[in-house]
Amino acid sequence: MDDGVVNQDVVVFFDTTLRDGEQSPGASLTSAEKLEIARQLARLGVDIIEAGFPAASPDDLAAVQRVAREVGQGPDSPTICGLARAVEKDILTCWEGVKDAHKPRIHTFLGTSDIHLKYQTGFTYQQGLDAIRKAVTLAASLSPDVEFSPMDAGRTNPDYLVEVCALAVACGARTLNIPDTVGYVTPGEWHDVIARLIELTPGAGKGSGVIWSVHCHNDLGLATANTLAGVMAGARQVEVTINGIGERAGNTSLEEVAMALATRPHYYNVGMHINTKEIVKTSRMVSNYMGIHVQPNKAIVGANAFAHEAGIHQDGMLKNASTYEIMTPESVGWTQSRLVLGKHSGRHALKVRLEELGYTLDKEGLQQVFDRFKVLADAKKNVTDADLAALMTDELHKPQEFFHLNDIQVMSGTMGMPTATAKLSTGDGEVHIHAAVGAGPVDACYRALDAIINLPNTLIEYSVHSVTEGIDALGEVTVRIETPDGARSFGGYGADSDIIVASVKAYLAALNRMIAALGLGAVKPEGEAATVAIGD
Amino acid sequence: MDDGVVNQDVVVFFDTTLRDGEQSPGASLTSAEKLEIARQLARLGVDIIEAGFPAASPDDLAAVQRVAREVGQGPDSPTICGLARAVEKDILTCWEGVKDAHKPRIHTFLGTSDIHLKYQTGFTYQQGLDAIRKAVTLAASLSPDVEFSPMDAGRTNPDYLVEVCALAVACGARTLNIPDTVGYVTPGEWHDVIARLIELTPGAGKGSGVIWSVHCHNDLGLATANTLAGVMAGARQVEVTINGIGERAGNTSLEEVAMALATRPHYYNVGMHINTKEIVKTSRMVSNYMGIHVQPNKAIVGANAFAHEAGIHQDGMLKNASTYEIMTPESVGWTQSRLVLGKHSGRHALKVRLEELGYTLDKEGLQQVFDRFKVLADAKKNVTDADLAALMTDELHKPQEFFHLNDIQVMSGTMGMPTATAKLSTGDGEVHIHAAVGAGPVDACYRALDAIINLPNTLIEYSVHSVTEGIDALGEVTVRIETPDGARSFGGYGADSDIIVASVKAYLAALNRMIAALGLGAVKPEGEAATVAIGD
Repeated sequence: MDDGVVNQDVVVFFDTTLRDGEQSPGASLTSAEKLEIARQLARLGVDIIEAGFPAASPDDLAAVQRVAREVGQGPDSPTICGLARAVEKDILTCWEGVKDAHKPRIHTFLGTSDIHLKYQTGFTYQQGLDAIRKAVTLAASLSPDVEFSPMDAGRTNPDYLVEVCALAVACGARTLNIPDTVGYVTPGEWHDVIARLIELTPGAGKGSGVIWSVHCHNDLGLATANTLAGVMAGARQVEVTINGIGERAGNTSLEEVAMALATRPHYYNVGMHINTKEIVKTSRMVSNYMGIHVQPNKAIVGANAFAHEAGIHQDGMLKNASTYEIMTPESVGWTQSRLVLGKHSGRHALKVRLEELGYTLDKEGLQQVFDRFKVLADAKKNVTDADLAALMTDELHKPQEFFHLNDIQVMSGTMGMPTATAKLSTGDGEVHIHAAVGAGPVDACYRALDAIINLPNTLIEYSVHSVTEGIDALGEVTVRIETPDGARSFGGYGADSDIIVASVKAYLAALNRMIAALGLGAVKPEGEAATVAIGD
Repeated sequence: MDDGVVNQDVVVFFDTTLRDGEQSPGASLTSAEKLEIARQLARLGVDIIEAGFPAASPDDLAAVQRVAREVGQGPDSPTICGLARAVEKDILTCWEGVKDAHKPRIHTFLGTSDIHLKYQTGFTYQQGLDAIRKAVTLAASLSPDVEFSPMDAGRTNPDYLVEVCALAVACGARTLNIPDTVGYVTPGEWHDVIARLIELTPGAGKGSGVIWSVHCHNDLGLATANTLAGVMAGARQVEVTINGIGERAGNTSLEEVAMALATRPHYYNVGMHINTKEIVKTSRMVSNYMGIHVQPNKAIVGANAFAHEAGIHQDGMLKNASTYEIMTPESVGWTQSRLVLGKHSGRHALKVRLEELGYTLDKEGLQQVFDRFKVLADAKKNVTDADLAALMTDELHKPQEFFHLNDIQVMSGTMGMPTATAKLSTGDGEVHIHAAVGAGPVDACYRALDAIINLPNTLIEYSVHSVTEGIDALGEVTVRIETPDGARSFGGYGADSDIIVASVKAYLAALNRMIAALGLGAVKPEGEAATVAIGD
């Protein structure tokens, strides 16, 4: 690292994990999961949380409201922001979502490139300006803090872009966010775009109080470099996500930008409010809840990012950390913390450790987790922090249960005919048992569940990972299923020391989500089995 | 994309997947896997393949020789390169490795930053120069093509760096590779470093015929941007790996640099020999063989990189591909190819399809794969290209088998006491059966294997993924085990439609590798069971 820190002004971090990040295929979150992530983002020191797109659905609105009311309270809380298209209905709904926060923000946008104008709205340049004037004026009449984004700015006519930005500021926008929506620009170009906008936009230059922001996508692997180029050009807000998740190849990674600023303070010469020691924990939480794995060679948060620290032999070389290390694993929150709890640990020890890990539980929640903890501690020697995090995900963020897993039993091996028997119950206490044969034990289990639930779907993703070293670790399974027409997908997550059981939990969770989302009142079992009525 | 292509001069791609990439923790490859990857890199159009570090071990030397003799033949083949420290023994061994290639190259290096000089070699500046003079002169006396790298150039005294580069050229180096070994530099700085070197280094300026090269690491997520900044400054070789694998957060991703050049030809204004349509296939092969997964939001090669194409609903937006797309999935080799083969497909159909996928098999190899294919086709409906690729990995690149899996049988579920019975045989035909109870079915199986093989080890990684959609897909399991002192680690890979069986195959493969590598003549079972003598 450079020596010392020279903070002139501050770059604020706008995290859109809960909005742009949630647009990753299959990454839908429950309202409780969103809240937990928002709490962690506040601990991480994020300045603005974009909590969702309230007009998208009543669920989205409710989730944003919950974040505003529970995480956005008090003067030290982050600003809570919602996204809205440049139309009246979106902006009114967005305000409903964020207004209860101590610091609310409405973020409204319009595609301004020729191609977006032509294919999305059919607007002329003038119609685009009219829509922006109406939208920003309305937003500013509701909210003290308004952000405007000209979508696809990277491919927008430069003169029109200046006109659009000037208009948004004149109508009350305080932050102008310039997105490279398709991940096309290079750092050199992007620097020039931002510098030119700051110089040429009337009413938005230095000293105007307007904050310029950059929002980059990673299609060519340049999101972090483009974002930093924006900062060098004068941008003082960066729009980022945890682990760089988001549509397609994703958004700019918060952790990469934060650590570049932290590692090279003399070069970038800006301050920030991010507490870098919370980075790894936030990364794991988002990865677990969204079921989107982080590759081992991901910068900062990948399992190998500091692997030279992990006993890897450096052939014939003398050891000096700074020879190969520009930042320490501890500075981003990698710890060696292990063996914290075992089968003799009590409820109080568990509660204290969970609180240290950032989980706040009521009495009933603690009891549930404690019951699962004892089962786990019986099955494996050491219960680690990662095991506890997985347990929390599994226990506290279950979707509504139309079908409950009573038991599953499976037999497999090289002798052929993997066979599973599933026992499920519904809300009315009716119990269903079905056996099935499959290509493998998980397939057999899923067929047994399908035989009972009979909800046509396509399994589009199935992934397993073990959260801690050792095969007696808790296995985590994430699945994604799709409706037969491919229009909607649902994720499910399960954790268990038995990966078959974890697989069954994950699939059942996804099925329960699908039943809830599609508003299915009754799902009928196949063939000769009896009809199952749900919820009656 | 920009319209048209203006190729002035060409950037050559130096792929170090088999050298720097293989330094990823646990990513060790068999000689056959290295050969297969080298063949695919040649198809991809890579100009130089760095095939290994011949002085590291006799196995490494043999693997480089094999690549030189089988992939490096003929005038259109890639250059085959080996790495060597700036010492006589390394350079002589390196030449043994590459000399049979049509176009051999020796790549020698010395750490030139103050911190590397101090802690690695203990050299003064003058001693560093002497070592470089000796090493490059020797290399140039053997090989017509020599590359020199001043390691940690990013932190090397700028004047000393010029002196070092000039000396290497004077002694016969034709390529000067400038590495940012610790991933510390920014694109702006790196542009200036490369431009300055080209301008100031005597005998290595424009028109000198010397090729400047950049080698970047991704610790802050800037490797691709730094590499492209080098190209803008005049570098005409880029050192990259497939999927950006490598030590820590890895190296520059070949696919990101190639697609940036392909997408923005007018901006970068250089040509290349990469056939971008081979990118996805190469990515999958490297990921499968090395057991290093690619995250869904990885640029270009992640499963979601083109997810807007995959039926994801764009709410209320008119559709026009270029609205959100700067390159097509087809341009990098994503295909919809599916349902190619089923249970009624014959040996010839399988052979033809495997050849289309790039696998060349002798008669015996084909028979082995065909037998496994029939078993798989019985268990699952459709055998996809990805299933075939997994089968190939599993069948053709097995380590030497000290213990062979005859059968495994396992029972598990929510009722508790997961139990497995394993039946293994040794080379002498002796058969061992052992049952064990574990925390889950995989743990039970591993305990059963441990009870027979009794080779102390720590399981440091266990990961499963399903190669194709649908749970009846072939499951792939990768494990890594470590010797109890943590000094050496061994990877194992298994594929099966039953993930428990795949898990057992992977662990057994890792154990067999460990037995081979440690030269264990005999491994004794625990407790009351009989002693097992291996290989007698």
